[in-house]
Amino acid sequence: MGLILLRYGELALKGGNRIAFLRRLRQNVRAALKAHGLSGEVTSVERRVYVRTDQVEEALDPLSRVFGLVSISPVVEARHDIESITQVAMEEARVAGVSPGVSFRVRARRSDKSFPFTSPEINRLVGGTIHDALQGKVDLSDNADVTIGIEVSREEALIFARTIPAPGGLPLGIEGRVVALLSGGIDSPVAAWMMMKRGCWVIPVHFTQSDLETSKAMDNIEVLRRYSYGWDLKPLVFSQYDTIAPTLEKLQTIGEERWSCVFCKRALMQKACQVAEEYGAHAVVMGDALGQVASQTLANMEVTSYDMSKPIFRPLIGLDKTEIIQLARRIGTFEISTRAEGTCQFLPCHPLTQGTVPKLEQIIRQLEEIEAIDH
Amino acid sequence: MGLILLRYGELALKGGNRIAFLRRLRQNVRAALKAHGLSGEVTSVERRVYVRTDQVEEALDPLSRVFGLVSISPVVEARHDIESITQVAMEEARVAGVSPGVSFRVRARRSDKSFPFTSPEINRLVGGTIHDALQGKVDLSDNADVTIGIEVSREEALIFARTIPAPGGLPLGIEGRVVALLSGGIDSPVAAWMMMKRGCWVIPVHFTQSDLETSKAMDNIEVLRRYSYGWDLKPLVFSQYDTIAPTLEKLQTIGEERWSCVFCKRALMQKACQVAEEYGAHAVVMGDALGQVASQTLANMEVTSYDMSKPIFRPLIGLDKTEIIQLARRIGTFEISTRAEGTCQFLPCHPLTQGTVPKLEQIIRQLEEIEAIDH
Repeated sequence: MGLILLRYGELALKGGNRIAFLRRLRQNVRAALKAHGLSGEVTSVERRVYVRTDQVEEALDPLSRVFGLVSISPVVEARHDIESITQVAMEEARVAGVSPGVSFRVRARRSDKSFPFTSPEINRLVGGTIHDALQGKVDLSDNADVTIGIEVSREEALIFARTIPAPGGLPLGIEGRVVALLSGGIDSPVAAWMMMKRGCWVIPVHFTQSDLETSKAMDNIEVLRRYSYGWDLKPLVFSQYDTIAPTLEKLQTIGEERWSCVFCKRALMQKACQVAEEYGAHAVVMGDALGQVASQTLANMEVTSYDMSKPIFRPLIGLDKTEIIQLARRIGTFEISTRAEGTCQFLPCHPLTQGTVPKLEQIIRQLEEIEAIDH
Repeated sequence: MGLILLRYGELALKGGNRIAFLRRLRQNVRAALKAHGLSGEVTSVERRVYVRTDQVEEALDPLSRVFGLVSISPVVEARHDIESITQVAMEEARVAGVSPGVSFRVRARRSDKSFPFTSPEINRLVGGTIHDALQGKVDLSDNADVTIGIEVSREEALIFARTIPAPGGLPLGIEGRVVALLSGGIDSPVAAWMMMKRGCWVIPVHFTQSDLETSKAMDNIEVLRRYSYGWDLKPLVFSQYDTIAPTLEKLQTIGEERWSCVFCKRALMQKACQVAEEYGAHAVVMGDALGQVASQTLANMEVTSYDMSKPIFRPLIGLDKTEIIQLARRIGTFEISTRAEGTCQFLPCHPLTQGTVPKLEQIIRQLEEIEAIDH
């Protein structure tokens, strides 16, 4: 049986929050193992979570995508004495490749303050022995090729030579549900991922526009699913045409086609708010950024959001395009999102860039009048 | 007279957007110089902006905080021939400290394709000469101690050995106005800064709670002012007590003190929306994050945002606390925000964590009834 050490972050966890955080984290870790057909026992001791499994290597990849964790390490157990610690650390250093050309450092952390050696003493003793035996160069900086970690607790010591980064954030689900609008583009999957990272169960809503676009959205949801352990990321799919066509036709009737993009977006957002209400979600998440395209102006954001029944979360609103692309690459959605697709069939020649709420309200009234005449 | 090269980023700038972007960027660069009593001539040629000034060193610091710029370099001009380029590059390398212990690389960029040497040829020729003369080790990686840049345009060549990072984003003001709620805490100045970075003129709104808290908010605004070239970041200050006390008293009357934080926040947000309407701002910016304190739940965000007349922007909603702190340190507000302060005098014993909109509406009706009786 092997052991994996899971580190969680988020400062200022205290009281009831901390208990709920840990319970949810352990649940999601179990879900991650189960999703890949792996067995393992999940426990938490002091400020760490542990997974005991005989499938360590297979478990590392899914566990590295569990929100709430900041990093994970496969560990080897040593007895609670300096000889055993030194022996196991040396073996780990050897396996990790420490040798005349490969630098290393030892970083001990002692939660058992009664252990007869302090952390710096352990570093020196173990580091010296490894240096003598394997001839690796000692490098105390972050540039060391290999870092040998040692955690001494009351009953044993854990040794590790590999630390794999995890995404941080809060355990998925701890904050409740949100609806996320997902197109085939770069932004919306990043926005959804950020809210997942902050502990939200995401209900993806997609509006079909073309087969190409929908297949991109579905492929992106498959990627997001790899981060959604403990929650079934099942998309709700609606026809964009059915959702917006009646309104767009009426806009033509009154000669306000320039408002098409605003009313289209409003119709999709209203539908998403409705879904949120039905599914017990507290907000609608969108990939809105500022200034990327002509219609993404502050003025247009004001008119599209006006009078929505749920709060609109825009986690990308303060980010640069380069930052969004960097995140999309890290998440794994960038390649999918940049596949070719058609342009919107409803795009007017001169879409509006500076809408106002009074004008919006006037058009809404006009549309309601047409509605009344039609019936 | 010296010359500074300013690089701007933001992919996909095209057409009219690009012209407006550049015009605003040049205006803000001029404002940055003026704010520090510096004189300089600002021009843009091809994909670069230039500042010609005899106060190069003094100008570098303010210019490094102009949004829309990704980096800046003081440059030396060389004649349009390889001999002059080599001679100037060698002098710059020497000043930058290239020597037997200091590695370097040469990176040429040729916008004039008729120049008789290609970029790799310039790199080899100039790099070889510097290596022979100064004995610096060539390191083509990003780890090189010194990077000598060479930009060959149609008429001359520019040489630089220093590149100072700038914040990126869009030129301040290009997107219009937003109102930002600013407390003395860590989050709200970061949120305001992110919207400034995305091209918004920010109108800071502060509600006084204690002198300590207000002085922190004002000091943070002073820091933000260092990024606000071209816009006077003038705070509007209101009394928190006057804004919320009447409602809180009525909440007590009907025994709903647990809703105090929600109604307090709603009152401040409503006031901010009102200010936005008066000042032609399109949105209200808040430092809301998820799960930091017990009352920052999705459910509470839904009830506080309910029925607000302006869109609420929460640029931190998808960020971890560690990421927010990192930004606060970079901006320069962290030390101020973490100074001691009192706790809110209106904080109830058990603040609500899971508000619902129907219950909110019920309480609003009750408060309106009391209001009616009072008058």
